[in-house]
Amino acid sequence: MARINPDRLLADLDQLRTFGACGNGVMRPSLSPVDMQARHWLAQRMRDAGLEARIDGVGNVIGRCVRPGPALLIGSHSDTQPRGGWLDGAMGVIYGLEIARALAEEPATAHLAVDPVAWVDEEGTFLGCLGSRSWCGVLEPDDEAAARNADGVTLREAIAAAGLTELPRERLPADRYIGYLEAHIEQGPYLEEARLDIGVVTSIVGIRGCTVEFVGEQNHAGTTPMARRKDAGVALFDYAVKIRERFQALAGERTVWTIGRATLEPGAPSIIPGCARMLLQFRDASEALLDRMEAAAIALAEEATTAGPVRVSARRARTPVAPTIMDAGLQRHIADAAEKRVPGRWMRMPSAAGHDPMVIAPHLPCAMLFIPSINGISHDFAEDSKREDIVTGCQVLADAAESILRNASAA
Amino acid sequence: MARINPDRLLADLDQLRTFGACGNGVMRPSLSPVDMQARHWLAQRMRDAGLEARIDGVGNVIGRCVRPGPALLIGSHSDTQPRGGWLDGAMGVIYGLEIARALAEEPATAHLAVDPVAWVDEEGTFLGCLGSRSWCGVLEPDDEAAARNADGVTLREAIAAAGLTELPRERLPADRYIGYLEAHIEQGPYLEEARLDIGVVTSIVGIRGCTVEFVGEQNHAGTTPMARRKDAGVALFDYAVKIRERFQALAGERTVWTIGRATLEPGAPSIIPGCARMLLQFRDASEALLDRMEAAAIALAEEATTAGPVRVSARRARTPVAPTIMDAGLQRHIADAAEKRVPGRWMRMPSAAGHDPMVIAPHLPCAMLFIPSINGISHDFAEDSKREDIVTGCQVLADAAESILRNASAA
Repeated sequence: MARINPDRLLADLDQLRTFGACGNGVMRPSLSPVDMQARHWLAQRMRDAGLEARIDGVGNVIGRCVRPGPALLIGSHSDTQPRGGWLDGAMGVIYGLEIARALAEEPATAHLAVDPVAWVDEEGTFLGCLGSRSWCGVLEPDDEAAARNADGVTLREAIAAAGLTELPRERLPADRYIGYLEAHIEQGPYLEEARLDIGVVTSIVGIRGCTVEFVGEQNHAGTTPMARRKDAGVALFDYAVKIRERFQALAGERTVWTIGRATLEPGAPSIIPGCARMLLQFRDASEALLDRMEAAAIALAEEATTAGPVRVSARRARTPVAPTIMDAGLQRHIADAAEKRVPGRWMRMPSAAGHDPMVIAPHLPCAMLFIPSINGISHDFAEDSKREDIVTGCQVLADAAESILRNASAA
Repeated sequence: MARINPDRLLADLDQLRTFGACGNGVMRPSLSPVDMQARHWLAQRMRDAGLEARIDGVGNVIGRCVRPGPALLIGSHSDTQPRGGWLDGAMGVIYGLEIARALAEEPATAHLAVDPVAWVDEEGTFLGCLGSRSWCGVLEPDDEAAARNADGVTLREAIAAAGLTELPRERLPADRYIGYLEAHIEQGPYLEEARLDIGVVTSIVGIRGCTVEFVGEQNHAGTTPMARRKDAGVALFDYAVKIRERFQALAGERTVWTIGRATLEPGAPSIIPGCARMLLQFRDASEALLDRMEAAAIALAEEATTAGPVRVSARRARTPVAPTIMDAGLQRHIADAAEKRVPGRWMRMPSAAGHDPMVIAPHLPCAMLFIPSINGISHDFAEDSKREDIVTGCQVLADAAESILRNASAA
């Protein structure tokens, strides 16, 4: 089996970290000058490894090895959250580069084709998963035209400022790839708590959102007796407590739900709120469970309206994100590789956060590998993982890639 | 007993309503041109009744009858809420005028001294109870200097625009008054629901406020398992539901409490709230009960912090307003008058809203009389009362005034 080079892997990760470094964290929003510097550096590192490397018209960096397919695409995104960690995205990108190098260096695997990739704007500075959407041909022109960052800069302006406007946009070629692999830090606590080294991702959870509205009667907080009130805020508090009970009864082990926003109107100390509103979001890998949760949220609203005195309505708040199932065959190769390198120290698990494979999976079989996050922290300067875990994850993914490609050649 | 003139009473009320009329409602904010027109009209109506009438340096209209004391001051405020009703304040002002006229017309009561008054800015367009504060000598220069309306006009500018700057400010004279009487619409539903005509006000409720803060841990709404969350919003919802149970156990029949504002931070659908805050207000006529409620709010916060995982703190949010007790002797005269005119159709009750007697009571014995509000509505164009109830209330207050003044002369 090909051996990855741990020192080279970690040195490249440390180098990528310098672009936008801020203390222990990184500020490298997509298409910013420092992000483009990092992309040019990545393309050069790919060329140093003997790959043809191009930055495409939206900023994706794709390295293409000279060998014909069947090939594996391996990577992640190299942009970060506004105040992000050093591994979110970056680690998976350098894994792709290192695996391409490791396989090419070893005579027994030099014939296998691995192309590394660094997607652009997975974090949604302008438009979430911009790079993979463009590559899969599912970037809607209207969405692209409307996209702008928090400062009001349009995506089009940012692409022009990055010098990308005239470059061609790469697209998924018809016959080259047999799959896409992405490694990522877990961003949650499960691997660390279970004292395991590797997570084999089974699916990326789906997301549903409900807007719940409460319409009561605004009134004087002094002269209106408690029994005559139609207090929209009180109805909201009751709903929040009750939906927790309902969801707890339905939830699986990994189900999560969040009320991220709640507002009372008019919001004055001496006025009984006449209206209130909350955003309720819930995530799970099971579409059927998400259906049951959504039905429970709507049913609770109807029950509250019937009970009175406040009218409550719950409706779907955002385009639902369906769970994305990882390819079973690719999962098995990763699981086998993990069992060989770290016997018994891995598990299958869903991803609770979104990743580019949500976009890519309908077009190309996908699989993901997780390594532990220290304290489960991510999207924060404190995000970190142990260096030995980073190295182990890369070797397991390299083994899996080799196994997948050998298997495809033999077929 | 002196008889009031119902037609004259209602005609004057209808005339006052024309100043700032808007549909069934009135927009007559204090010191506005239309408010000043109404004040000049009121002063003229007082002069027509044989009184010496003056508009003072803050806009109070005070009519002084030529007879020596002991005298009663009877009135209310003639300014309105930005979008107010036609009776809030206005009715009590015209009662004072009509009672002064009725007693003067009747030979048997012509020797009794009643001075009507129309206070300025009870509603707080610039500074709540401005007129009564000035008259009682408790208007703080700093408060006066800082006062401005919602459009940013300072009180000083408004006084100048109203032509009042050079006028003397009237002050409570040392030896003239034995008390202040104010009639008002109830602004709540109790009299109507009990099918009673008159409320004898026992006290004006006190107001306490608490700011309750919740400090948890902001985190990713996808990757953070439910069991590991420190969700400040969840803690707020729990607190809101529990404080209701605690307050219900403590509350008297008329106690009210309101959570008028609640906010979660950062308020995004995919982020677990790290901080949350609510405003909790409670009102009752009993200072001891308010103390127990405040203690309960603080204790519940401490219990929540101990239980974890979110730190909860409750602290007093505004300068508390102490309950104002109405003078027992004056109350008794009103109660006796009510029992004679409408036997069994009156009750004693607290006022849930604030009024000028909160300011005046420390300086002069006060009492208030309520008449029913249709549907309990006030501070709204829909505010109204039955004309026969308006007439009854004025006659009862006239009887009480006569009885109080006769009693004082006899003493």
